[in-house]
Amino acid sequence: MKKIITISREFGSGGRSVGRLLAERLGYKFYDSEIVEKIASECGYHKDFIGEHSECATSGHSVLFSLSRSGNSIHNSIYDEIFIAQRKVILDIYNNENAVIVGRCADYILKDFNDVFNVFIYTDKERRKERIIQEYGENKDKSIDKRIKEKDKKREVYYKTYTGRDFGDVHNYDVAIDSKVGINKCVDILYNLIKE
Amino acid sequence: MKKIITISREFGSGGRSVGRLLAERLGYKFYDSEIVEKIASECGYHKDFIGEHSECATSGHSVLFSLSRSGNSIHNSIYDEIFIAQRKVILDIYNNENAVIVGRCADYILKDFNDVFNVFIYTDKERRKERIIQEYGENKDKSIDKRIKEKDKKREVYYKTYTGRDFGDVHNYDVAIDSKVGINKCVDILYNLIKE
Repeated sequence: MKKIITISREFGSGGRSVGRLLAERLGYKFYDSEIVEKIASECGYHKDFIGEHSECATSGHSVLFSLSRSGNSIHNSIYDEIFIAQRKVILDIYNNENAVIVGRCADYILKDFNDVFNVFIYTDKERRKERIIQEYGENKDKSIDKRIKEKDKKREVYYKTYTGRDFGDVHNYDVAIDSKVGINKCVDILYNLIKE
Repeated sequence: MKKIITISREFGSGGRSVGRLLAERLGYKFYDSEIVEKIASECGYHKDFIGEHSECATSGHSVLFSLSRSGNSIHNSIYDEIFIAQRKVILDIYNNENAVIVGRCADYILKDFNDVFNVFIYTDKERRKERIIQEYGENKDKSIDKRIKEKDKKREVYYKTYTGRDFGDVHNYDVAIDSKVGINKCVDILYNLIKE
């Protein structure tokens, strides 16, 4: 039985909903923004600051990776501090709970454990647009295409910076599902895979 | 109900076995090398020649895509002829049968139909090596790593040449499964997804 399920997801794919429902069904804790308070108390920054700077990286070259503080050092040192705290929090969760964790490089942080199951949820642009507007509303200052493009880029850079891997590369995951089959169907598939 | 299932697979991932078992379970026709005779009779080349040149492209620039015959024209014109015949055969299968089709850009050729379900099967290098040796045996002239590298490159170039897409990009598929869960488990998941 898998004790941690990580959900990596494209913005607007419904991956967070899949994770929440899956956690309910498995009787596992659910961590998405819920993890922010834990990270805040680990590194000492206010939770609003963590929320804002979570899943961020400046350049694709973290101090942690390059072991050098040249270039982008001010931003990266804060991001790196947050990442270090986040890593510790995720390892603590692994050691103490059964949980579904959304995003935050949890798949990478827990890559050496066999009882972790890694999922990627994605879908096509049109479905993502619909879901984003339904869930977060319109944004009169920024087009939906621009919002998706920026968020995709941010996740790609963040993931690459802290893992050295490409976000969305299937080899990082046990299974990848296009959420167009429906959120509940995704949950069914994952539940059946995990409970064995 | 989906009438065609396409299986794209990494060499040594067991995708072909998944496809064969899935076809049996669904009561569908199975096409892997079985498609070669149909392509041969469509384009007039001998089936051994088709078998040898199937899923091949020289350069990543097919005549079909570039609409120009400059560069690599001799090889590409043969490959393009085979691809045109293959495209027709796959569309004929779509129009006349329920089937599971392995490889051959079937996902791309049938991309405009809603009753087609696209699958990608992959796994890590170590598992692929084991399966390749078990299934095809050792090759004393070529290391297993070299065989995998060459085959991956060949599929990547072939797929890119005739589809313009990246082989293994999740967005081309409805679901992608790491076959380490087991071949039968892959078949179960797919059967449950498709039969609805």
